[in-house]
Amino acid sequence: MTDLSAVKAALTSQRIETPSWAYGNSGTRFKVFAQPGVPRDPYEKLDDAAQVHAVTGVAPVVALHIPWDRVDDYAALAAHAADRGLELGAVNSNVFQDDDYKLGSVCHPDPAVRRKALDHLLECVDIMDATGSHDLKLWFADGTNYPGQDDVTGRQDRLAEALSAVYERLGDGQRMLLEYKLFEPSFYTTDVPDWGTAYAHCLRLGPKAQVVVDTGHHAPGTNIEFIVAMLLREGKLGGFDFNSRFYADDDLMVGAADPFQLFRIMHEVVKNGGLARETGVAFMLDQCHNIEAKIPAIVRSVMNVQEATAKALLVDIPALAAAQRTGDVLEANAVLMDAYNTDVRPLLAGVREDMGLAPDPMAAYRATGWAERIVADRVGGEQAGWGA
Amino acid sequence: MTDLSAVKAALTSQRIETPSWAYGNSGTRFKVFAQPGVPRDPYEKLDDAAQVHAVTGVAPVVALHIPWDRVDDYAALAAHAADRGLELGAVNSNVFQDDDYKLGSVCHPDPAVRRKALDHLLECVDIMDATGSHDLKLWFADGTNYPGQDDVTGRQDRLAEALSAVYERLGDGQRMLLEYKLFEPSFYTTDVPDWGTAYAHCLRLGPKAQVVVDTGHHAPGTNIEFIVAMLLREGKLGGFDFNSRFYADDDLMVGAADPFQLFRIMHEVVKNGGLARETGVAFMLDQCHNIEAKIPAIVRSVMNVQEATAKALLVDIPALAAAQRTGDVLEANAVLMDAYNTDVRPLLAGVREDMGLAPDPMAAYRATGWAERIVADRVGGEQAGWGA
Amino acid sequence: MTDLSAVKAALTSQRIETPSWAYGNSGTRFKVFAQPGVPRDPYEKLDDAAQVHAVTGVAPVVALHIPWDRVDDYAALAAHAADRGLELGAVNSNVFQDDDYKLGSVCHPDPAVRRKALDHLLECVDIMDATGSHDLKLWFADGTNYPGQDDVTGRQDRLAEALSAVYERLGDGQRMLLEYKLFEPSFYTTDVPDWGTAYAHCLRLGPKAQVVVDTGHHAPGTNIEFIVAMLLREGKLGGFDFNSRFYADDDLMVGAADPFQLFRIMHEVVKNGGLARETGVAFMLDQCHNIEAKIPAIVRSVMNVQEATAKALLVDIPALAAAQRTGDVLEANAVLMDAYNTDVRPLLAGVREDMGLAPDPMAAYRATGWAERIVADRVGGEQAGWGA
Amino acid sequence: MTDLSAVKAALTSQRIETPSWAYGNSGTRFKVFAQPGVPRDPYEKLDDAAQVHAVTGVAPVVALHIPWDRVDDYAALAAHAADRGLELGAVNSNVFQDDDYKLGSVCHPDPAVRRKALDHLLECVDIMDATGSHDLKLWFADGTNYPGQDDVTGRQDRLAEALSAVYERLGDGQRMLLEYKLFEPSFYTTDVPDWGTAYAHCLRLGPKAQVVVDTGHHAPGTNIEFIVAMLLREGKLGGFDFNSRFYADDDLMVGAADPFQLFRIMHEVVKNGGLARETGVAFMLDQCHNIEAKIPAIVRSVMNVQEATAKALLVDIPALAAAQRTGDVLEANAVLMDAYNTDVRPLLAGVREDMGLAPDPMAAYRATGWAERIVADRVGGEQAGWGA
Repeated sequence: MTDLSAVKAALTSQRIETPSWAYGNSGTRFKVFAQPGVPRDPYEKLDDAAQVHAVTGVAPVVALHIPWDRVDDYAALAAHAADRGLELGAVNSNVFQDDDYKLGSVCHPDPAVRRKALDHLLECVDIMDATGSHDLKLWFADGTNYPGQDDVTGRQDRLAEALSAVYERLGDGQRMLLEYKLFEPSFYTTDVPDWGTAYAHCLRLGPKAQVVVDTGHHAPGTNIEFIVAMLLREGKLGGFDFNSRFYADDDLMVGAADPFQLFRIMHEVVKNGGLARETGVAFMLDQCHNIEAKIPAIVRSVMNVQEATAKALLVDIPALAAAQRTGDVLEANAVLMDAYNTDVRPLLAGVREDMGLAPDPMAAYRATGWAERIVADRVGGEQAGWGA
Repeated sequence: MTDLSAVKAALTSQRIETPSWAYGNSGTRFKVFAQPGVPRDPYEKLDDAAQVHAVTGVAPVVALHIPWDRVDDYAALAAHAADRGLELGAVNSNVFQDDDYKLGSVCHPDPAVRRKALDHLLECVDIMDATGSHDLKLWFADGTNYPGQDDVTGRQDRLAEALSAVYERLGDGQRMLLEYKLFEPSFYTTDVPDWGTAYAHCLRLGPKAQVVVDTGHHAPGTNIEFIVAMLLREGKLGGFDFNSRFYADDDLMVGAADPFQLFRIMHEVVKNGGLARETGVAFMLDQCHNIEAKIPAIVRSVMNVQEATAKALLVDIPALAAAQRTGDVLEANAVLMDAYNTDVRPLLAGVREDMGLAPDPMAAYRATGWAERIVADRVGGEQAGWGA
Repeated sequence: MTDLSAVKAALTSQRIETPSWAYGNSGTRFKVFAQPGVPRDPYEKLDDAAQVHAVTGVAPVVALHIPWDRVDDYAALAAHAADRGLELGAVNSNVFQDDDYKLGSVCHPDPAVRRKALDHLLECVDIMDATGSHDLKLWFADGTNYPGQDDVTGRQDRLAEALSAVYERLGDGQRMLLEYKLFEPSFYTTDVPDWGTAYAHCLRLGPKAQVVVDTGHHAPGTNIEFIVAMLLREGKLGGFDFNSRFYADDDLMVGAADPFQLFRIMHEVVKNGGLARETGVAFMLDQCHNIEAKIPAIVRSVMNVQEATAKALLVDIPALAAAQRTGDVLEANAVLMDAYNTDVRPLLAGVREDMGLAPDPMAAYRATGWAERIVADRVGGEQAGWGA
Repeated sequence: MTDLSAVKAALTSQRIETPSWAYGNSGTRFKVFAQPGVPRDPYEKLDDAAQVHAVTGVAPVVALHIPWDRVDDYAALAAHAADRGLELGAVNSNVFQDDDYKLGSVCHPDPAVRRKALDHLLECVDIMDATGSHDLKLWFADGTNYPGQDDVTGRQDRLAEALSAVYERLGDGQRMLLEYKLFEPSFYTTDVPDWGTAYAHCLRLGPKAQVVVDTGHHAPGTNIEFIVAMLLREGKLGGFDFNSRFYADDDLMVGAADPFQLFRIMHEVVKNGGLARETGVAFMLDQCHNIEAKIPAIVRSVMNVQEATAKALLVDIPALAAAQRTGDVLEANAVLMDAYNTDVRPLLAGVREDMGLAPDPMAAYRATGWAERIVADRVGGEQAGWGA
């Protein structure tokens, strides 16, 4: 029933953005386990990202994190990317790792700290101008740990003020993507804890402000695909930070914890037109590979997104709509599950071969010898990590 | 530091709305345990509500539920209330107990069912005209149980259409209060599952549409007082459905499961001006007394709201603001906890005596003999319950 | 790598037990939606169960619920089952629907109520003697709604006393299966809330007492397959009550909410030998079909268990163990996911054809015309429901 | 009704154990905010702990963490403690911060890593011999991040083997306290995730093995006081790691997030005899003070435990039991709430004055000038933190 060539075309043109920080070391508060061969600077991160794109064909964009990816010459960094068939994606701000930010950044009670944080956000837009990035991704660790610690609505006022100042600074073709997160590192209130808060701010700011859905940042039991559908309906879905979790902000590989949920999310994306390039929905990974090899983990994650997308594209929408219209609960569910239960790996292998790639990206990566090469080459210097 | 006479004035003028259905039988899906003396019609429910008001002095409003409280002559019902010092409060619609509503009401795929549901909502506004009620409270059991069962955004379109039709019908001084609920009775999607969805609809509808926060209807870990503060900041908090819970929609007595949370909620209400009559925030109970005696449980619940309010009023706001401004985490928390740790029962006993009431409402109710009287009198007929 | 004939043999010999109550009406506390053609007595429930077995070939056992399935002549009921190729399975006790049980059954503060509850449990063993059932399944709604309501350890003492009395009454070849449940209908404490409590009681009772894992009865985030593995390791897994859920005790079709979780559970069962008939692990459904057609929902559920089992049987255990031994996180995960991502529907169609059945049970059931026949025939009388 | 002198005696003799690591820096995976004046070695941690004991009178015991508190001469460390009126408490093992432990410690697939971990545990017992500590507290970060990563039951076998080896090494009067934790840093399985698992191991090991309840380490909705009551009933409650949380392992000050829960826990402790010194229940703090001043936070935490204990001691047990016996739900709840709603701060001020202490420990600490002194004195060297 489904038009297979359209499915293949959609899969071929999908673009998945990988985050520079996922190539570096990460860990939990208990321990960061260093891995041999990890990049030592933003250039080496791009080298690794190029490997992921080379074997998957759908990961040409790399998100930056400032200051972790600060360089003297952003044009040179962009050229380094372009030489490897990559482009620089969203610029992610970081207003949580200076000592000044202990009690917040743009929501801090002290105006001097707020000013410093705002300056950093504006600097990020400068960097976007230099790199040609379209998206500014904002996540704020701001919040409080104890009841009474600060004024909930006062902090919202400060947040609104900072967002407004940044919004005014955005150029043509630039967007602000506002991420929400239930908790961590704040444990009582978080200043942008849910999609409602992010949506309310973005609505007031205007069309260049949109919401980012990080699939790991919700309360237990939250129906994430519902939120995705709502934001698409309102024209406010800016993109995803993909990862997966069993408990809290586990940051595991996307699709690892609940592949059916990922499929349901992609089903809402596909059904509501979110896969079309012009809607601007960014499909970004935001993961930490604490114990698994980093590049292969990212290859696997890209594949997991592809598989969920392929299944979502296979849903027989007319049959689904017909069953829904007649209230046939079991049949409607069966139509959806039929797509989910399909093994799409052969289909994706074919898509890759059509793109001139090896059918199995994991094997293709292993065959390159890159893993061994970086272990041998990248000695000395300081490994990149969350703070580097 | 706090102005005690202002505190007492606020406590004296507080109005807590009790729900007619809490006087009748209720239960879980496993069993409804009937209690002797339970009302058999709306008039007897008002008689019981009058007892609650008589001993607490702050519960003069009674919410109705249609069709459970359908009567031939609403003017007569309003007069029955007035004779007892009561007034009729929010009219609660019910579009979930007819067989037609198996797959939804205003979001149902079948337009005939949607029309029937809408007609009921419009009838509720007619009843408001007759009773003089100001508020239409809308809760929809609409949703789906299985992925694929129906179209998420299609259902939102149908919802928006129905809400708009009802909104148009509202008269001067009438409001629509839209309640959200995470889940139950729907188990996959709920059409109004969170405050963001309710807010988005109310914003589009206009100033007469506001959000109701039912304290039991959130995912685990949700910071409810944050939502309360957000809605007050946006001018969209219509009121509360108070109850408490340890797990899901337990519908226990407000303040029974987490009295500190109730205090934090009331702190946000007080701090953000929500206690003032003119803001229109309605303080309603929405509880089920499955195993405990109904009238005393409601008296206790009213007292629990009063105690949380009293503690919130005792917060030393200038001291709190000073500690917040200087980033003194422990001191700010201590200022808040100092109010919470205060035993406000003597203060409330004094407030009651100033109002000419007995200091202990529970003892006062016991002394009336009403409990024994209704057991003796209310024999025959059919007891009121969730379906009656 | 996997021995396909062994896989097929395992799938052919699997036995899934369906619950008599799932053929009758059910609902939430808000509404029970009646369906046409629903059975009116235990005999008609068996007739429906026979349809499920006829098209799946692996559902020959039907669990009873007393008093809902009380009949004058249990031998006649067993014969009715045998005539249809069925046998009677676990006897489920019910000590939660009498008015006496408002505050508990075997844990009730009043010894007279405890005695009544114990007598019912002993009657259930009498019925087992009459039906030839091997398993007594015990679930207690016992618990409290409010802190302080009753004494936590006192209730454990009463529970232990009742369980001991029932254990003593068990005959040769009879078992007691103790189910745990986090909450509902009790909202503060539940007397058997978790596997630890059930395990502690069963350990003390002896080898005939084992734990039942209801897949819907856990706190958010609980790793159910871990519990399954632990209980198998301790020799204390008596069986499953299968269903699925997104939130609380949704009682949806098994595999509908999280098919990957069901696969992980079956993987632990297979890996730890739990599929072997002699371990005695019972694979029971315990579901409510509130809005979907009941018999097809049960057919689908049986198929979902089969598919998860098939995938679990396809896991390449030697390859998995090798990757685990060397600490290859991604490869070990990949081995498991390879089995999960396989489309096992063709394999199962083949298994069915080998058994002389149609490859598609859903289509086969539709073709029987049974759905139409029961609607036409079962008029008059009272439909079976949770209370009937 | 309650015997106030007995209450005071119990409060006077209470002993709360503070953890050495709570005096040092800590943070989240995003950032550790350093504080001026933080200790630079175990001796300075004891100096700070002495300040806490000096103003509260009930915190004479300090738990150690090895290797964070490794010194050349443990007798000298014990003498340093004794000079300050302190004694050394539980020795906490650490088998999660070496690179070898990336995939686990005693459950690691590699026997060499397991051996190394076991050697560390045995070294901890050696240290107990040297310090005179009675308790070995074991927490294992062991677990897996991805389904399939390792064998669940195989890991249990390895765990059992290591625990058994340590148990054999324990001397007279020494105990092993086994802590469980739902998740973090492992995100799929944790090898000791719940009380059931810890209990099963301790039961098999023998009477010297007991379970530690960390109040922050449970799934949402878990009734912790129920677990406490169960473990006391089984004689297996070794002690508490107190802290509080709104979401996951927040490690906030005990009583800060849900003071009513802390009261309910202490009510079960008091009611079931757990406050008596001879039961051996250890009342330990295990907190991180990421943004608040460390010593005052610990003083406040000790006070919070005292206040919850005082309220629990005030519960009118005969009145409670009478209401429970007659099934008076509201009255039983009211008896409990009456104690909770009491302001016990004056009572505790009196207890302190009877002990020769200032009535307000927070003010007393401020008056010492210790905070300013350590900021001035502790310059140079490396601050203590989670890794130091």
